[in-house]
Amino acid sequence: MLILTEQEKAIAASIAEMKSKAGSHSPSVFTLFENLPELRVKIDACYLSNPYATELFLNFLRRELIDTGRLRDFLEFYPSQNQVIASALEEHLDVPTGKIFVGNGAAEIIQAVIHNFTTKKILVNIPTFSSYYEFAKDDVQVLYFKLDKDNNFRLDIDSYLQTIKREKPDTVVLINPNNPDGGYIGFAEIQHLLEELREVDNIIIDESFIHFSFEERVNKFRSALELSRHFNNLIIIKSMSKDFGIAGIRAGYAVMSEAKVNYLLKNGYLWNVSGLAQYFFNLYAREEFSREYEKVRVQYVQEAQTFFKNLSKIPSIKVYPSMANFALVELIDGSRAADFFIKMLVQHHIYTRSCSDKIGLDGQFVRIAARTKGENQAIINAINSIYSLPLEYDYEVAMQAA
Amino acid sequence: MLILTEQEKAIAASIAEMKSKAGSHSPSVFTLFENLPELRVKIDACYLSNPYATELFLNFLRRELIDTGRLRDFLEFYPSQNQVIASALEEHLDVPTGKIFVGNGAAEIIQAVIHNFTTKKILVNIPTFSSYYEFAKDDVQVLYFKLDKDNNFRLDIDSYLQTIKREKPDTVVLINPNNPDGGYIGFAEIQHLLEELREVDNIIIDESFIHFSFEERVNKFRSALELSRHFNNLIIIKSMSKDFGIAGIRAGYAVMSEAKVNYLLKNGYLWNVSGLAQYFFNLYAREEFSREYEKVRVQYVQEAQTFFKNLSKIPSIKVYPSMANFALVELIDGSRAADFFIKMLVQHHIYTRSCSDKIGLDGQFVRIAARTKGENQAIINAINSIYSLPLEYDYEVAMQAA
Repeated sequence: MLILTEQEKAIAASIAEMKSKAGSHSPSVFTLFENLPELRVKIDACYLSNPYATELFLNFLRRELIDTGRLRDFLEFYPSQNQVIASALEEHLDVPTGKIFVGNGAAEIIQAVIHNFTTKKILVNIPTFSSYYEFAKDDVQVLYFKLDKDNNFRLDIDSYLQTIKREKPDTVVLINPNNPDGGYIGFAEIQHLLEELREVDNIIIDESFIHFSFEERVNKFRSALELSRHFNNLIIIKSMSKDFGIAGIRAGYAVMSEAKVNYLLKNGYLWNVSGLAQYFFNLYAREEFSREYEKVRVQYVQEAQTFFKNLSKIPSIKVYPSMANFALVELIDGSRAADFFIKMLVQHHIYTRSCSDKIGLDGQFVRIAARTKGENQAIINAINSIYSLPLEYDYEVAMQAA
Repeated sequence: MLILTEQEKAIAASIAEMKSKAGSHSPSVFTLFENLPELRVKIDACYLSNPYATELFLNFLRRELIDTGRLRDFLEFYPSQNQVIASALEEHLDVPTGKIFVGNGAAEIIQAVIHNFTTKKILVNIPTFSSYYEFAKDDVQVLYFKLDKDNNFRLDIDSYLQTIKREKPDTVVLINPNNPDGGYIGFAEIQHLLEELREVDNIIIDESFIHFSFEERVNKFRSALELSRHFNNLIIIKSMSKDFGIAGIRAGYAVMSEAKVNYLLKNGYLWNVSGLAQYFFNLYAREEFSREYEKVRVQYVQEAQTFFKNLSKIPSIKVYPSMANFALVELIDGSRAADFFIKMLVQHHIYTRSCSDKIGLDGQFVRIAARTKGENQAIINAINSIYSLPLEYDYEVAMQAA
């Protein structure tokens, strides 16, 4: 069982204070550095992004904007407006422009949808990404549908449908794969749910992690996008921060009915996307970029799955099945998640996510993101090390590879 | 009087179509280029930014982020959250963090304030920046207070106060200096207004152009910020796009009561500011940057005032007094503003703002932004040229200087 030293306890207290200021989300790496400059973060396994995709994006950015001097235009001038940027995505997504809403990150879109379209009751599966209930307005009732730990947090479709028919929420939220457990709802099940839930005003499917999932073959994912023309109540929300590794740019989009897009644009969301996000959206729609991205996506998904498999070999922890780019890890030896977090940070400079604040999680849980192959190995070695288990690989070598 | 050629008429039609898609704002330079690649814009006198400040920001960005490789961190990682970024501004603004709300451009803040705090009636002076009435929700009554052209669009304080006492709006909006005319309300008058309007729930003062104004000495402006501790109903909104020339980054802030900031943060506005905007806000608060900025600010203000003086010497147009970085120009020879816009764009590659769509402007108006000294001269030469007036300077030389 993990026990903190006095020095580790002091750092834990400082971080707890920062965290109370950051609300229910982890302090950013920036905030962490500013407040505790002695803490080096070598591996950020808290935030959830594909580092290979970041590198790919940076290569394009360097070549096309920095080396050419065009970067200035993207910083100086106003970006184009919402529907102009949306039109760049039309062909790539195979969805008409009028159904696309671009946002300053998925967080802005979640806020827009919940504030404007949820009027009475929202059903949220827990554990979940907290914004879905935090952003609910005061007069909206929040209902929770608990995912069962003993069933690996899989969604029980029948019980879910029964709850909805009984409670009649105007909004239901499915994150697929789910955050923080990585549980995946197959395409056929999604289709079945949509068929059954035609009476619900807003069915939000958050596909921020869909690029990391697969059905038969590891190199192919299936998005609910192809169903959008058949279900007018479907709202697909997509962060670009995770799959493309560009959380700092703030880029996301949603696909929903034209009426809903128009409602949002009617009084707001002007220039809500930055010049660099506009550059990104245009890049995203380009075949040249897509082709390159597809390679790093598949590579990352394969490495992530290998990482989860290796993680699950460690005694003292239980790893839940994940189709996302992170694993939900339960500490089953009596250790506290908060102590695991501190030991990983202080001794190994690895930033993980303690899930102590997540509602609907009974037990001690941490969420660990997959990174590069070398970093993944370093994370495994670090966990072995804090539990005083023999290392599989030489720690220093793995860190250098990271 | 200006008369379009057939070719100019065809381009006018294409732009009109684009403009209908862009709503009541001009299409961005990006949109313009994409749709009409044959149109080169050499001088953007439509959008309103200090080009010297853009250059200054780019110098810091190059030195600190690009050359060092730190740019990646700002694109890859989540930025800090609202109040963490606000705390970086506390000392510089001399306002407690709890009263500061940072936004994804002033547009997001205008939307947040109008959607959340304006419940019944909003009083907007016209002509104005259209978002202030466009963002009003359906059940909010919009009242207009017309600024008198014959009084150079100056605000008549007594008549304004009478209107407010009679109509009892819950929100009043003052843009100072005003957009699109540049009219300025002195600090003493602002203070007087605030004293008289303690009963109004929300007094919005939009100071997006305040850095271009001055009272006694051209190198010193006075912000209503220093009054914020005395008036709990005061909401100061500040875009950083104009004075710092960074519209593409989307950065703005507001100062308002702590209760209002908390209300906004309670269910939203998480990660609403990008990594680069966070970098900018930290830079803005640094003395090293402030000192350099102050030089380019004063230089630009002086050149802008000289530009307005030179503009006003041109017959056929009337230039209204401006304390902003643009001049409202009335065509008094019977020419149409739309035709002026097209001639400037097609013949001289200068992008200006026709104000035909601005409510509260009776007559033919264009708004022309001040740019660098060389560009300002090129703009004057271009106007002389489209009116077939003798040029003061050699046009080609001035364009090269631009």
